Amino acid sequence: MPKTGINIVMKQVYFDNAATTQIRNEVVDAMAEVMKSNYGNASSSHSFGRSAKAIIEKSRKIIAHYFNASAGEIVFTSGGTEADNLVLRSAVRDLGVKHIITTKIEHHGVLHTVEAIVKDYNITVSYLNIDKNGEIDYKQLKTLLETNTNVLVSLMHVNNEIGNVLDLKRVADLCKANKALFHSDAVQSVGHYKLDLQDIQIDYLAASAHKFHGPKGVGFAFIRKNSGLRASILGGEQERGLRAGTESVHNIVGLEKALNIAYANFDEEVKYIKTIKAYFINKISQDIPGVVFNGNSGDLAKSTYTLVNVCLPVAPNKSGMLLFQLDLKGIACSRGSACQSGSPKKSHVLTEILDAAALEKPSIRFSFSIYSTKEEVDYVVDVLKEFITK
Amino acid sequence: MPKTGINIVMKQVYFDNAATTQIRNEVVDAMAEVMKSNYGNASSSHSFGRSAKAIIEKSRKIIAHYFNASAGEIVFTSGGTEADNLVLRSAVRDLGVKHIITTKIEHHGVLHTVEAIVKDYNITVSYLNIDKNGEIDYKQLKTLLETNTNVLVSLMHVNNEIGNVLDLKRVADLCKANKALFHSDAVQSVGHYKLDLQDIQIDYLAASAHKFHGPKGVGFAFIRKNSGLRASILGGEQERGLRAGTESVHNIVGLEKALNIAYANFDEEVKYIKTIKAYFINKISQDIPGVVFNGNSGDLAKSTYTLVNVCLPVAPNKSGMLLFQLDLKGIACSRGSACQSGSPKKSHVLTEILDAAALEKPSIRFSFSIYSTKEEVDYVVDVLKEFITK
Repeated sequence: MPKTGINIVMKQVYFDNAATTQIRNEVVDAMAEVMKSNYGNASSSHSFGRSAKAIIEKSRKIIAHYFNASAGEIVFTSGGTEADNLVLRSAVRDLGVKHIITTKIEHHGVLHTVEAIVKDYNITVSYLNIDKNGEIDYKQLKTLLETNTNVLVSLMHVNNEIGNVLDLKRVADLCKANKALFHSDAVQSVGHYKLDLQDIQIDYLAASAHKFHGPKGVGFAFIRKNSGLRASILGGEQERGLRAGTESVHNIVGLEKALNIAYANFDEEVKYIKTIKAYFINKISQDIPGVVFNGNSGDLAKSTYTLVNVCLPVAPNKSGMLLFQLDLKGIACSRGSACQSGSPKKSHVLTEILDAAALEKPSIRFSFSIYSTKEEVDYVVDVLKEFITK
Repeated sequence: MPKTGINIVMKQVYFDNAATTQIRNEVVDAMAEVMKSNYGNASSSHSFGRSAKAIIEKSRKIIAHYFNASAGEIVFTSGGTEADNLVLRSAVRDLGVKHIITTKIEHHGVLHTVEAIVKDYNITVSYLNIDKNGEIDYKQLKTLLETNTNVLVSLMHVNNEIGNVLDLKRVADLCKANKALFHSDAVQSVGHYKLDLQDIQIDYLAASAHKFHGPKGVGFAFIRKNSGLRASILGGEQERGLRAGTESVHNIVGLEKALNIAYANFDEEVKYIKTIKAYFINKISQDIPGVVFNGNSGDLAKSTYTLVNVCLPVAPNKSGMLLFQLDLKGIACSRGSACQSGSPKKSHVLTEILDAAALEKPSIRFSFSIYSTKEEVDYVVDVLKEFITK
């Protein structure tokens, strides 16, 4: 690829939008504006405090509206992981859940939390069977729900590594019919999929702003009315007693603003990113024979439009160099979730679904956003092709 | 006060800096800059991620330096309350603490957390005696430390309501001599008092950025090396495994920036705010006979230079209207901590130290910052005087 020449190190392609997204300038501006003009503590009863409180409550109402939820069902947290922890721990501690049904391909925010809770409270956990495409076994789920009581199901909406999309409504209905609670880590879907939480009778949901061009360090838990959940972080009475700590007004405003923009341009942006993903699938399939799409990620109908996860036909002796080479070429992508990308361990998701031979080959997740372009796809696939064939 | 006339509603005096402080413009600018230029996930291994990671680690190092601590001892959290929760819960869960020594005048971030932990783990708690000035009983502390094992002491550095300053070194030495762990909620002192944590052999400390002109929603726990503490929020391996969740890069940068500015102008700003407090004490003592300073807050040598808490000679029938009147006049101040100011309950701190007669009268906390002026003090005391005498 001599044509890129000296520019190689300068070129930067960000295809790791499942790890985090570029914050929109309008979001930054809204945050800066609120920090400069409103610095009250939302728990103070004077005008400065009321003003901060009004800002937060307006954001809460707007956000709730997008989900057909009521404002009181939105609990702001420091992010998706905290929201997962809040829901899972309280459901066991305060609601008497005795059995958790989940999978081994959940995000660590759920997986590690469930492992700890199961130990702390001496309860049972069932991990659903996962087929080679990363699909859960609905029959097994039904049987488990019918033969157990005091159950909490925790299944993520969009898998962060392979992009599989769970049928939330189907699981919610199954849970409802069997009086089980249902939580979903929806960190990869909120802001990318519209969710009507009156139609989908889920109990809890976790979301994070920085996955849809909002700020890092803020998210929310949807907690359905009269849930009986209680706080894990104790102190003041913020968030109706469900989450102590002075509210991060600017981060909440940033979350709202990012969601506003996402919803304002929803169909258009979905369509655009879908085009990028389709182009990527097409291009890599043509240029790199032997490429395999992990999970359902090669199927636009069964996976999120925001990512693909490809298993590449790379010789074992070169495999370890791939990410390094991509990085040198300015390409940001990931082996698994960002939360474990610093670790030498293999992806816990792919370990569950791939056979030994496939696990020997490098698998890479490329995840897209409105800022991604076809030219970037061309560049990335060219770099991959060069690496594999040279 | 006819001279203020039609301007009354426009005038705004912010004397509630113990609740939260006005964020400095330079801090907002630094946060906006980092959000626009660096959006990587600090856990990603590519260049975007490494760049975010480098920013965080630089902030951590700078912050640690101010406390004569090492970078690995600073754990970023979503604020002071989360830091308190992290330390207290883990000390009991993971380090085998069986007995907590604290007081009933701690911030609710400690008080409510201790209450929950004591119940969850069936351990013992001792509340130190507090005299009428809010001083702890050091003798009792010594005796308790000498007659108990597996002890954690949790005492705040600067009381958020009455401003009393604990002798951190004295308590740390007592704890050290008796092999007890020592945690301090230093939310009101970090950024206002310089702490050398090599000199003060405390084990843990909680701090919050928005108390020293930084952003809301970020703080840190100082956790001394090899502490054995473990995370309460589980998921990814962020913060060396002590706190899962994507790091809020901009908030961490804001925290660092606010601390940088505080330390750059430390002596000068302390001196200025001291002058304001001294002026307030002098003015209110002259103009409102019968005013009483709660705790040590009237004594500049024994209380923080940032606040006073005054018990006002107001007739019982007018007492309920005082805060409302101050608010109408544009004056922001507080009955207690912001975390409980929406509540009709009396301050839990004042309830511990005042007699019944004093509790019948309104007590108000006025807390100052570099933005406070003598003219504002004049205005506030004039308004108080008018309210009391009219």
